Amino acid sequence: MNDFDYIKQTFELAKRGLGRTWPNPLVGSVIVKNNRVIGQGHHVQYGDAHAEINALNNCTESPEGSTLYVNLEPCCHTDKQTPPCAQRLIKEKIKKVVICNLDPNPKVNGQGVAILRQHGIEVEHGILDEEGEKLNEVFFFNQRSNSSFVHLKLASTLDGKIALPNGESKWITGEVARQHVHYLRSLHQGVIIGAETLRKDNPQLNVRLENFQGEQPWRIVFTQSGKLPKESQIFHDEHSHKTLIFTHAPVDLKLPPENILQIKDLSEAFGLLKERKLINLFFEGGATLASQFIQDKRVQRVSYFINPSFLGSGKSALSDLNITQLQHRPKLFNLESQWFGEDLMLSGRVQ
Amino acid sequence: MNDFDYIKQTFELAKRGLGRTWPNPLVGSVIVKNNRVIGQGHHVQYGDAHAEINALNNCTESPEGSTLYVNLEPCCHTDKQTPPCAQRLIKEKIKKVVICNLDPNPKVNGQGVAILRQHGIEVEHGILDEEGEKLNEVFFFNQRSNSSFVHLKLASTLDGKIALPNGESKWITGEVARQHVHYLRSLHQGVIIGAETLRKDNPQLNVRLENFQGEQPWRIVFTQSGKLPKESQIFHDEHSHKTLIFTHAPVDLKLPPENILQIKDLSEAFGLLKERKLINLFFEGGATLASQFIQDKRVQRVSYFINPSFLGSGKSALSDLNITQLQHRPKLFNLESQWFGEDLMLSGRVQ
Repeated sequence: MNDFDYIKQTFELAKRGLGRTWPNPLVGSVIVKNNRVIGQGHHVQYGDAHAEINALNNCTESPEGSTLYVNLEPCCHTDKQTPPCAQRLIKEKIKKVVICNLDPNPKVNGQGVAILRQHGIEVEHGILDEEGEKLNEVFFFNQRSNSSFVHLKLASTLDGKIALPNGESKWITGEVARQHVHYLRSLHQGVIIGAETLRKDNPQLNVRLENFQGEQPWRIVFTQSGKLPKESQIFHDEHSHKTLIFTHAPVDLKLPPENILQIKDLSEAFGLLKERKLINLFFEGGATLASQFIQDKRVQRVSYFINPSFLGSGKSALSDLNITQLQHRPKLFNLESQWFGEDLMLSGRVQ
Repeated sequence: MNDFDYIKQTFELAKRGLGRTWPNPLVGSVIVKNNRVIGQGHHVQYGDAHAEINALNNCTESPEGSTLYVNLEPCCHTDKQTPPCAQRLIKEKIKKVVICNLDPNPKVNGQGVAILRQHGIEVEHGILDEEGEKLNEVFFFNQRSNSSFVHLKLASTLDGKIALPNGESKWITGEVARQHVHYLRSLHQGVIIGAETLRKDNPQLNVRLENFQGEQPWRIVFTQSGKLPKESQIFHDEHSHKTLIFTHAPVDLKLPPENILQIKDLSEAFGLLKERKLINLFFEGGATLASQFIQDKRVQRVSYFINPSFLGSGKSALSDLNITQLQHRPKLFNLESQWFGEDLMLSGRVQ
């Protein structure tokens, strides 16, 4: 086992917090002494102890003189719910700290490392940092751009169609792909749709996975007219307090008034989302709204499910993007592909 | 080395004939004696010796008592340019023959095996037969359906667009993908396009690969009106004798009259293609014509290049397919995916 192996182990530990740590990142930590792991831990959920603290608390022997691995720079600031990790590492007489990513948060960024070094602790960082950034891509984006991360899901035939001209759309993709969409939902704080999708599909927008114990996501509906079908499931089910409306016109619905937010544009909506710490959102519906989000550069990741079939004519996955030159079209980067049954998912970052 | 390894070796030998053996299949053969390969060969091109004969002729010692591996059943009929292979195997006192696929040609199908067995040769067949069928998918299709095989190439953005509303279409896919299209062309006898593509792109439709020494493909244009631009490259370049027009109306072009074929429908065109032994065709252009071919069930394989980008509005990869129920849409099977630079190619058989 070398530094790379242990950092990979911190990633695996970190992932145990998937979907639970918002707005905090996913962090795992491993403590190694005499080539043996003597403690490990991860950040379980927002407000709870950081990964390093859990790893220290789980140690089976004294961590004095050990090496601590962690995928994010230990914190050094005190204006939050937990005491700074750097102090605890110093107190425990850790000999060496190996870090994947520096914390992009300007309150930390390199200062955690500096404090450790001032106290004679040897520090390395930048080990597998690209993998670490990917693991916490939402957190890094939030910190750097100060805006919510939007993950757009699209699903179409190879020729880009999502429904027949007669409207038939169930289903383009197969059961396995649709199940994976529930998994993707579970990793986000909220699911965004347009009013058209609400009217047409009356979706539940909840996570329906066996043994799922996380929190159900917010359901966030964007509407121009404010006219939404009162009988929609998301206004009446047990999670109706987690339904949020962004509207350009008054809305007549029996929802808590703070859940109906009148906006002028997407910029205002994103300001309000940030205020509510809804920083990690999954977009699931509506070619028109999706196209608006893309045009307004509000989408950071796209996961596109392709069913290897053709419809020819029918409804397209996207509507107008107002592109006048090929070189200006939105592209995806750092792509990954994965089969889900008969469907291929391509997932990549939007530049 | 076991039977599977040697049959795989016959595949590799067979592939050396790629693009040259039409209308014959790709065949390779390996002769093994005392666990050593003592001879190998492949079918080089149409009219030349079969793979087994080349392998026998290449033997470094007497093949008596050896095992001959071949990916297609040795022939037993004499109504062709070469003497039947089965007789030669008997004469050479081969001990055992291991075959991948039986010959689908009704003149052979199992009879080659029967003759060998009658002469005391041990025969096994069906080793890696799915892989063997895939290698010779065009040949198997030709034999079973008595029709030409059409391989449709499409290329679009993720949302199924091939050009902007203003017509800009160069390029959706990158250099590496476009280079692979030349390779795909090189594996076919002819390239099909519609008149619209000829008018718009004035393409050369030749194979532009470094060190390519094979034959250039036929250029086959389908037109309703018969009105084609006289100055098109394919009517004037050095391969203009290999330009074929299928037209629904008279054509006024300086081409050999036998290269202008007036037809009523696709069925008639496919009859004429078969008469000319053009059984392996690559389709490269025109959403409308491609859609007609798909609707008329004339497409056997689709290779779809996806550029991970979006156009929103614009020209779609296909036009109407006259589908009224999702379950009746054309699907691809046995899919393979491969990256070419930034583009993903999905290739599969049409059911």
